[in-house]
Amino acid sequence: MNHLNDLTDLKKEDWEKIVNLAIKIYESPSNYSHICDGKILATLFYEPSTRTQMSFQTAMLRLGGNVIGFDNPQNSSVSKGENLADTIRIISGYADAIAMRHPIEGATLAAGQYTNSILINAGDGGHFHPTQTLTDLVTIKKEIGHFDNLTIGLCGDLKHGRTVHSLINLLSRYDNIKFILISTNELRLPDRFKHIIKQGNCSYIEVLSIEEAIAELDVLYMTRIQKERFASEELYNQQKNVYILNCAKLLNAKADLKILHPLPRVDEIALEVDNDERACYFKQAKYGVYARMALIMNFMLQADKEFSTLNGEDLDKHCKNGNCITNHEDYLKKSFINVGGKLYCEYCDNSL
Amino acid sequence: MNHLNDLTDLKKEDWEKIVNLAIKIYESPSNYSHICDGKILATLFYEPSTRTQMSFQTAMLRLGGNVIGFDNPQNSSVSKGENLADTIRIISGYADAIAMRHPIEGATLAAGQYTNSILINAGDGGHFHPTQTLTDLVTIKKEIGHFDNLTIGLCGDLKHGRTVHSLINLLSRYDNIKFILISTNELRLPDRFKHIIKQGNCSYIEVLSIEEAIAELDVLYMTRIQKERFASEELYNQQKNVYILNCAKLLNAKADLKILHPLPRVDEIALEVDNDERACYFKQAKYGVYARMALIMNFMLQADKEFSTLNGEDLDKHCKNGNCITNHEDYLKKSFINVGGKLYCEYCDNSL
Amino acid sequence: MNHLNDLTDLKKEDWEKIVNLAIKIYESPSNYSHICDGKILATLFYEPSTRTQMSFQTAMLRLGGNVIGFDNPQNSSVSKGENLADTIRIISGYADAIAMRHPIEGATLAAGQYTNSILINAGDGGHFHPTQTLTDLVTIKKEIGHFDNLTIGLCGDLKHGRTVHSLINLLSRYDNIKFILISTNELRLPDRFKHIIKQGNCSYIEVLSIEEAIAELDVLYMTRIQKERFASEELYNQQKNVYILNCAKLLNAKADLKILHPLPRVDEIALEVDNDERACYFKQAKYGVYARMALIMNFMLQADKEFSTLNGEDLDKHCKNGNCITNHEDYLKKSFINVGGKLYCEYCDNSL
Repeated sequence: MNHLNDLTDLKKEDWEKIVNLAIKIYESPSNYSHICDGKILATLFYEPSTRTQMSFQTAMLRLGGNVIGFDNPQNSSVSKGENLADTIRIISGYADAIAMRHPIEGATLAAGQYTNSILINAGDGGHFHPTQTLTDLVTIKKEIGHFDNLTIGLCGDLKHGRTVHSLINLLSRYDNIKFILISTNELRLPDRFKHIIKQGNCSYIEVLSIEEAIAELDVLYMTRIQKERFASEELYNQQKNVYILNCAKLLNAKADLKILHPLPRVDEIALEVDNDERACYFKQAKYGVYARMALIMNFMLQADKEFSTLNGEDLDKHCKNGNCITNHEDYLKKSFINVGGKLYCEYCDNSL
Repeated sequence: MNHLNDLTDLKKEDWEKIVNLAIKIYESPSNYSHICDGKILATLFYEPSTRTQMSFQTAMLRLGGNVIGFDNPQNSSVSKGENLADTIRIISGYADAIAMRHPIEGATLAAGQYTNSILINAGDGGHFHPTQTLTDLVTIKKEIGHFDNLTIGLCGDLKHGRTVHSLINLLSRYDNIKFILISTNELRLPDRFKHIIKQGNCSYIEVLSIEEAIAELDVLYMTRIQKERFASEELYNQQKNVYILNCAKLLNAKADLKILHPLPRVDEIALEVDNDERACYFKQAKYGVYARMALIMNFMLQADKEFSTLNGEDLDKHCKNGNCITNHEDYLKKSFINVGGKLYCEYCDNSL
Repeated sequence: MNHLNDLTDLKKEDWEKIVNLAIKIYESPSNYSHICDGKILATLFYEPSTRTQMSFQTAMLRLGGNVIGFDNPQNSSVSKGENLADTIRIISGYADAIAMRHPIEGATLAAGQYTNSILINAGDGGHFHPTQTLTDLVTIKKEIGHFDNLTIGLCGDLKHGRTVHSLINLLSRYDNIKFILISTNELRLPDRFKHIIKQGNCSYIEVLSIEEAIAELDVLYMTRIQKERFASEELYNQQKNVYILNCAKLLNAKADLKILHPLPRVDEIALEVDNDERACYFKQAKYGVYARMALIMNFMLQADKEFSTLNGEDLDKHCKNGNCITNHEDYLKKSFINVGGKLYCEYCDNSL
């Protein structure tokens, strides 16, 4: 395949290959600085995300390639009423690879049916963001050296956090991973991810504060809880400081703890932590460039030119998720997947 | 000349040279991938048009060159009150070539008086858009092999469509072209273009529907009719489907018909047509990159450094077209051309 | 140092080295076209300034490097609440050099404490704009050949003009410079710059019109007076034409006068002057590219990787300038410098 909708679409050995390649590139970048000479990456950002877009641009430039793209749907032909399929087919005539960010869930899977060029999901609404997860994996591998036998704290909004969900999904395929889930009762990890952890022969416990977990952790993955996610203003005022990492809370932490954060942070990590050697989040942002270089290079070296195919059934039903791409681009073939008797939209993974 | 205001400013052999070069580049792109090493193209888009801008960027990058530019007049010095002449003189100090899109008619001719760098009109209001026309010519030449002895259907808003007008202007210089003009009575081709057809020893007929024309056509060039162009809401509802191409209307078409469209389309070609082998509009968008590569390369290889000169007379009169550049930039020398006793503004081609 | 906050932070021989290098690059650009191969410049424009940004982009591309960046704070992570320090640390993981434009004074000095990459101030509010001043110096050196023994007219808003202030600051270090300060009484040069002139053993006189000065001048540096800077509407109407340069006012000027302007101009130089050989402002814009090339190259060839350090004292006080970066990013260490018993904020140079 030369499309990346989500990392979980890849086999374990395939994403490991990309992670290891990222580290090799990091260590000897000049060996890779002409891999994409003469190639063009289009960064189509239907939703602005300067950080992710600049990371992709840097990755392509450091491989010797070039970049076109937009960061503003108002300036694109979309504003003249063009559908996604047309845009993707036309850009496929310009660029060798496309990285697409879209506010609507399932947009990359949809786009993949209209291009046989390299296509990378740079975020589709609240759904997937595989290059962030790849970045997280590269960071753990580079900083710790392995994925097995780790105790990993995940802190913040575990209910909605897409990067947390992806990380659980992938790391549960390793041996003896213990997840410590740190959140409010309202923002606990959804059951389907707990199920994935158990299926993977890994384990988890749930706690309400960083302090309860900190001494055990090899990795602490911080994310933000938005004020509006708390059950009430009162609970927000009571709990907000519980989910902010500061130096005091690190007192009992291991000397080789690694603190990660997908960034941007707002105030969930106190600035004083930045000077702690265990803070890895700025390094993590840098590894993100190498993760994307490895991903682009991996696809560029493959000969295949494929379209995405749908695996589900084209039933005469409509996905109920108003933010699903099938409810925004009506020419798309519907596709539902049957999991244990329940139907899920293949584009956005919501149940019917 | 190293300025392109409109293709009709070139001699037939000159634009044919560019069309043929485009096809040569398409067939062996790697032979041309260092033609513009070290050169810079500025894409100055005073009006957003992501598609055209990305096509120019891709063209320059695939020739080995680089790109600077803007896509938003609000971010440019224009918003601080700078006039077009100053901007062009300054950008000429930065870039080796300029592609300019401007909402006001005559802007490229005006700009050309202030730069001896390469200057390409990427669209000046509703006036000219020569790189689209070049793209159309490359598509016909590549897909059919020649321009003579063709029957060409032009469908949609033939009154206002600038790409239709340019195409007629150029193709009328070939032998035995028959144009079939498909539009509502209100949106018929203006007389001056019918005159051009007759002068060129070509012919035309006017019809009211695609079905009347389809069996004869070698090329069907589709364009959009905007709802507000119909004479009334009632007529819109009666006629709208007449100008939408679908598979049913293609039943009697030739097997080797080529369907073109400048894109973006909204609904004037049904999506089902995309799977028909005669649909060439996505290929056409791709040929557009090669058309622009050939054009840039053609100018880059020329030694001349010229300013545009005006051919008309500087009369003490004002152009009556409110959207003419001479009514927006008051330092410009006026210039009127006498055609058959009638005066036309040289910038926007409107009659006094 | 590999940071440039203001040219006055450099020693005279250091900026002269850069000026001379700019002229060498101008004369043989192809000798320098691979100096930055494989390097990336990030242009972070928190405030749009297309001209300056394109000049930086051109400079980097003409050195063989590449460019990433943004021109719109709304599209950046800033809009998600990220502070400047985090943005700079992350971008330092992507790019080899950063050129930053920011509407708040002291932003570059602040940013410099969080990166050891190359960092160039591309304008921090109304405070510094060192690459414009470098451009002015390159223009004088290239057009006249030396800085000593010149009579330099500075015309316009001398009270607020940051480029005028910088130019005085630097040129006062040369021998026998005479400044003729041309402005309204309300917009006269502030005393501290007059003090700098005297300290440098240079001299100045103040006049109310261009005509009084013109015959003596080797350089006339024009800037704009905004309408709202005049003391009253009445004074505006009386005085406005006094500060507009036209051909009539140039009658008594030297044949080798050089007219400079930082651009964009609005109407402070009549268009008729553009055709006068003494008008250097478009050449000046072009020299700006070479000035930036020399600056980037100079830093790239240095081995040092440094953070900016503060020279002042961290007192328990707040800067009183509401537009100072320390009042917008509250984690910054305060720093005040004692000059003759008075305290000045090191970030924005305002007195306490």
